[in-house]
Order: sequence, then C-alpha cells, then structure tokens
Amino acid sequence: MSTQPKLELVRDVAPLTQNVAILGFGTVGRSVAEILSYSPDSRLRLTHIFNRNVDSKRVSWASDEILWTEKIDDILDSDADLIVETIGGLEPAYEWVRKALLKGKSVVTANKQLIAQRGRELTRLAFDTGQQLLFGASVAGGVPVLLALQEGLAGDRLVGISGILNGTCNYILTRMEQAGVSFGAALAEAQQFGYAEADPSADVNGDDAAAKLAILVQVALKVGLTPNAVRTTPVTDVDSIDFQYAKDLGCTIRQVSRAQFDGRKLFSSVEPALVPRESSLAQVQGNQNVVVASGKYGGNTAFSGSGAGGHPTAVAVISDLIAAAHGRTHQGWLVPGDSRPIRSTGDFTTPHYVRFVVKDRPGIIAEIAALLGARGINIDAVLQKSGFTKSALPFVITLEPCGASVLRETLDDLSRAEFLVKPPVTFPILR
Amino acid sequence: MSTQPKLELVRDVAPLTQNVAILGFGTVGRSVAEILSYSPDSRLRLTHIFNRNVDSKRVSWASDEILWTEKIDDILDSDADLIVETIGGLEPAYEWVRKALLKGKSVVTANKQLIAQRGRELTRLAFDTGQQLLFGASVAGGVPVLLALQEGLAGDRLVGISGILNGTCNYILTRMEQAGVSFGAALAEAQQFGYAEADPSADVNGDDAAAKLAILVQVALKVGLTPNAVRTTPVTDVDSIDFQYAKDLGCTIRQVSRAQFDGRKLFSSVEPALVPRESSLAQVQGNQNVVVASGKYGGNTAFSGSGAGGHPTAVAVISDLIAAAHGRTHQGWLVPGDSRPIRSTGDFTTPHYVRFVVKDRPGIIAEIAALLGARGINIDAVLQKSGFTKSALPFVITLEPCGASVLRETLDDLSRAEFLVKPPVTFPILR
Repeated sequence: MSTQPKLELVRDVAPLTQNVAILGFGTVGRSVAEILSYSPDSRLRLTHIFNRNVDSKRVSWASDEILWTEKIDDILDSDADLIVETIGGLEPAYEWVRKALLKGKSVVTANKQLIAQRGRELTRLAFDTGQQLLFGASVAGGVPVLLALQEGLAGDRLVGISGILNGTCNYILTRMEQAGVSFGAALAEAQQFGYAEADPSADVNGDDAAAKLAILVQVALKVGLTPNAVRTTPVTDVDSIDFQYAKDLGCTIRQVSRAQFDGRKLFSSVEPALVPRESSLAQVQGNQNVVVASGKYGGNTAFSGSGAGGHPTAVAVISDLIAAAHGRTHQGWLVPGDSRPIRSTGDFTTPHYVRFVVKDRPGIIAEIAALLGARGINIDAVLQKSGFTKSALPFVITLEPCGASVLRETLDDLSRAEFLVKPPVTFPILR
Repeated sequence: MSTQPKLELVRDVAPLTQNVAILGFGTVGRSVAEILSYSPDSRLRLTHIFNRNVDSKRVSWASDEILWTEKIDDILDSDADLIVETIGGLEPAYEWVRKALLKGKSVVTANKQLIAQRGRELTRLAFDTGQQLLFGASVAGGVPVLLALQEGLAGDRLVGISGILNGTCNYILTRMEQAGVSFGAALAEAQQFGYAEADPSADVNGDDAAAKLAILVQVALKVGLTPNAVRTTPVTDVDSIDFQYAKDLGCTIRQVSRAQFDGRKLFSSVEPALVPRESSLAQVQGNQNVVVASGKYGGNTAFSGSGAGGHPTAVAVISDLIAAAHGRTHQGWLVPGDSRPIRSTGDFTTPHYVRFVVKDRPGIIAEIAALLGARGINIDAVLQKSGFTKSALPFVITLEPCGASVLRETLDDLSRAEFLVKPPVTFPILR
C-alpha cells in the first residue's frame, strides 16, 4: 500500500439556503412543514404557507417568521425560491405552477393528475425558464421509484412496469384475503381507518392508479401515455370466493397496474388480477405500494414501501427540494421531444380466470368450452368448490393464454345464455 | 383551462460524447462492453479495454476502433474521459483509480472492497481533482439502492439498514429451505451452477456482505464504518433442522446484514438470522438481493432485484457512466469530513433462537433455564420435534429479547455441560 496522498480537508459544498413556500396545508403540506421545522435542513428555509382560510390552519410549532397567506400572489411575488405544490387536482394547480415557473421559481409537486396530464408541457416550460420541476412524490409516495427508474436504471432498456399503485384498493383486497370479508365490509373498514375517502370511486375504478401508471410509463418506458388511454377495470367485481379459488391456484388477487412497450406497441391496464402468492405484487400488504421494473439486461427490480400518508409523501417532497437546492436537474424525467402520447391497448395476452355462477344442469361446461373453442381459446382447468346450491352454483374456468378482447367478446356472446345467474367475471392470471 | 403557452421546441441537451475505458474484461467488464456495443448510447463511446493477456480476450463483436491493451499506462495516458474499474480487490485497483483521478479522469467502479476501505479517501481525491467517483455497482449489483438511499430518501432521517447482500448465501439457504438438503449439498449445487466460487469462504463467513454493509452504512446512515468492524458469523452452522423449527415459528433463515445508528451508537452485524416468512428479507429467493431502509418519517422502504451477474451489474455501471457524462455529481455519497469510522458493536438486543443437541436425561431444561435466568435471560418457548434418538436429541429454546453478547457468554459457560453432544447454535430472531 502506498502512502496516502496529502489532501486538504474538503470544504462543505452546501449551496445557499433556499426559501420554500408551501401551497396547500393539508396532510402532505403540513407534514412537509413539520419535517422542515423539527429536522431543519440548512439548505431549506420555510418562509411561506398558502391555504384558503389560512387562519384556521395556523400551528404553534411553526417558526414565527413564516408568512401565512390566502392570496396566491403573495407567494408568486415573494422571494420564495422553491414552491411545494400539494393542492392536488388540475386547476388551479396547473395555472399556479405555470406562473411560478414563469416567475423564476422551481416547483416540487406531489400532484399526480397535474404531472400525468400536463407534465410534459410544464417540464418544457421549466426547461425554457431555467427552473426545475420535480415530482418524485407524485407516484408511490415515499418510495423513490421515479429517481431509481430514470437514473438508477438509466443503463438498462426498460420494457415493462407493473405495480400496486393504489393503497386503498390494496388495503381492501388484502383485508378480503385475510379476513374473508366482503368487498363492501372491507371498504367500510378502510373508510373508518381513513385509508379510503367518502367517495372512493377514483381509487376503486382505477383512475387514481392510471394517472400514476401514465407517469411511470413516461419516465421508465420513455413513451407518452395519457391516463385516459389506460384500460381500467373496477375492483368491485372481486368477490370473497375469488380469493378461495385464487388460493387453490397458488395466487391471490390485487389491483395491478401494468404496461409493456416493445418499441412499437404500448400495452397498459389497471385491473384486478391473479398474482402468484410468492410474487412481489402479492407480498405488498395493507396500504403499501410496489413497483416492479423489467429491464432487458437487469431483469426485474422491485421498489416497495409507503405509497401514501403525510410523512412518507413529505419525505419524497423534501428529497426533491434538496435536489433542487443542489441544482440537480431531472429535466429528462419527461422527455419533451419524442414523448407525444401514442395509442395504448389493454389487450394483453395472458392466461385468464373466469368465474361463472349458473343454474346447474348437465352440459353447461361443454357449451362454454365449445363457444371458447370456436374463438381459439383453450380451457386449462375447471375448479368447483362444494357446498353451493344448484340454483346459483359458482365455478371457475382457467384459460390458456388468450387476448383480453377476444375473451370479453366471447363472454359477451355468452351473456345471453339461460343458465347464467349473473354475468361471468374474468381476471388475468399474471405468472 | 387556459390556452397552452407557445413554447420553442426543446433542443436535445445531450452532453458531448465521452470516451470510456474498461479495466478488466471479466464477467462485468465484458457485459459493460456488450451493452455499450449492442445498445449504443450516444453519450458514451467505448475506446479502450485493458486486461492481462489481452489477446486471449478479444471478441469479434466489439468495434474495430477499440484499443485493446495490457499496459495500464496506455489507459492512464489516453484520451479516455471515464474509466470503468472492474478488476476487483484492493491492489492494484486502488493505485490505478488514484492515478486515473489525478490524471483528470472520472471513475466508475463495481469494487466493493475498494470503496468500503478507501472510498472516503478516493471521494476526497475526486473532489479535489474535479472528477467524479461513482460506485452504484458496488452494492446489490443491478439494484439502484445507493442512489435511492442517498438522493431519493435524502428528505428522511435514516436510522437502520437491513438486507440480503450475498447472493451465494441466499441461494444456499433458500435451497436448504425448499429442498431440505444439507448445507454442503446446497453449496456444491451453488458451485455447480456458478453461483458460488471454488473458495466460497468470503461469502460464507460474511466478509463479502460486511464490505457492502459498510458502504451502505456510510451512504445511508452517514457514519463511517470499516468492514472489519462489522461483527460476522458464518452461515455454516445452519442445519436443515433449523429450517423446520424456524417454520414452526413462522420464520425462515437468511444471512442478514444489518445496522442501526441512533445518532450516538452504531450497531452492525452479518449473521444467519430467523426472519418472518412474510418479511421482505424472507421473500428474496435464490441469488437475489434486497435492501430495506428504515426512516424516521418514511418507515420501511425496500429495494430488491439481481444482486450480481454480468448484465445487472453492468446496468449499474452504465447508469453511473451516464450520470458522469451528464456531470451529475454524487460527491455527497461518502461524506469526507465527518464520517471518520466510529466503533461499532454487534451487540443487538433481540429475541433469540438456540438449538441444543443433548444426550437426554431429566432436568436438562431446568438447568439451562437456571443458567439463563441467572443472567437475566428469559425463556419464551421450548420446541422439540419427535423422531430423534435420546443420545443425540435436538431441541430449540426461544428467548425473550436479550443482548447477543450476554447470551454468547452464557452459552460459553454452558459449553462444559456433560449433557451437550455439540455446542449450542444461536441465531437472532428479527421480528
């Protein structure tokens, strides 16, 4: 070993302190203020808090030097360097973020709808104004998946993304699995504990996850995708009995968001799906999130943790504030030039699970098999649990890989069959 | 919605192309060359490859313009901007990396020993010479955990790290679990498939994982730790029967690397441990890796994927090359100033599992309980499987939380007991 080189002690390279304004003092905005107050960072000074009816929001633990205001121009015309946007929704967030960038302020946002729908345009504006737009908190809360995908896996060619992106649905489905309760009971419980809102429709129908998937696809697969181009299927059709059949198949049921891009064709969907019990998607419990990236060279890499909640989301916001204060740019996060939205299809080819409830009589499975066979769909197995009445008998057919669309058409044809007590329910099986 | 602002089309902001030299054309170096050749990146041009006996290494698929050499000065004196170091080991890697930095070249390395032992010094040198030293590939191969911890979770205060950092041990232990084979049989299998080297001692005794843990601790917990300060316990004591008892306790057994820092005291160890079957640590199969970071605000965040192998490790190298080509600095990764190594203890307080093999007679458990009780250690449960001979009867005692050191001292005292057929074996239980 040679002697160690004589080196000067490295001076601290911390940048100048930046003034931070928070727009919106709800759960996330308040958590950001808390962490900045209790774990102060020398690079960040909280100077402004904006909210409607701001007097009702004041807290005793915040510094006396903070300006509390309900006038947005007090923020836009202030000396704040960094704006934290935690208002949510498209308007007025879009307008205010745009104005902030034009006024020479960088913006850190947790707003998935804003980024999914206006992210490319705002990224371009940030670039042109020499500012930064960072949105690590917009997907998967405290899990630093966007940074990891964009920079940590920059050396790979990512071809697929799958994930559990909605904690409300995951809470409901894991409760149905573990406690055997109905969808309605699990939803009520989620609402009681604050994991679901009074109107849970955006969670349950897949819109919330579709916005996050659209951001992930743009960042990871480098192709434009708007949330409304993602095929969504509500999780409301999932029944307790589906978990019993899924278990027999070595699986459980999750609301899975996924996308694949082969360089030409983009597939994307948010829907309930059977996933193997030992898979990363199955192992995420309660209101946690997971994202699995599939790369040509690196295989599958998984990121999991707290997908929501004030403090975890605030960690993502503050990590972005620190990056902005250091002048670290993530301009490439949403490639402005070549990421015009392209058409997406939800017509993945996978094995499928189909649950029928029938008024039993001989020959039903033969009829179903004939109809499926006529469309080139092959049956893999038939599963039937005992203990049900013949007048409303549930059974399950699993199918070899087939396209989602042709299967749906076939089941539509079948919907007129006299033996059906209710329409069949189908989920893909993701092996 | 307002009309969209009129914006100029953003010009591509790609930096100038950088010349890349690879030191070492083994599995990782060759994979880096492959990806750069087959998936060319406009920012990176492979210009030099260094290896001993380089003529035996030449490949037909590489560009004719690459200079192949076995003289290190051909690299150090070249126009290469970025040096990829995949030689491994401390020397000559340390000397060559030092010289490269002094010659104004940035360095990307996959060398865990180099970074664990000389990382702070080399980081300081890189800073002073205005170059970059990036080492995302040195821990967990293709899993971008260092970047995620340092930047993605910068807004949190990380207090703990745990992980599966050695794919060889994880392969062996998951095979013992799943196939019920002995340690020796699983090791032989791992060697046959190329998951373990002819001399697996650094994997099995914990030294390999200790180097990676030392890097993680410096990056995540921001405190200095040298690999030899990590308490290591070989996995060789794990027996097939331990998996059966662990299963009864809802657990499995893994080689776990972990560290905790409360601001004053640093705990660190690499050892076989019981982990709950539903935990992130248990769910990592085969030669995969996982790292779980525990933050004050964000809770647990997990990162998992391919911890080794040519292509996944090459993805990490190339991601660092891209960051370096963009001038993105990670100088903060190993804080030079205040991260002088501090003392570390492996004396975690946890519940424990202790396996005895005894020549059975009445009163043994009472004697063990008395000895433990005298040291303030309480028994939680006694487990005994049937079907063993009384002359070599295995049974297991689980203990309420106690310090690892006091337990080891107690078991040392006990080692003279006439009823012991062999020394007792103990593992912590990580709930």
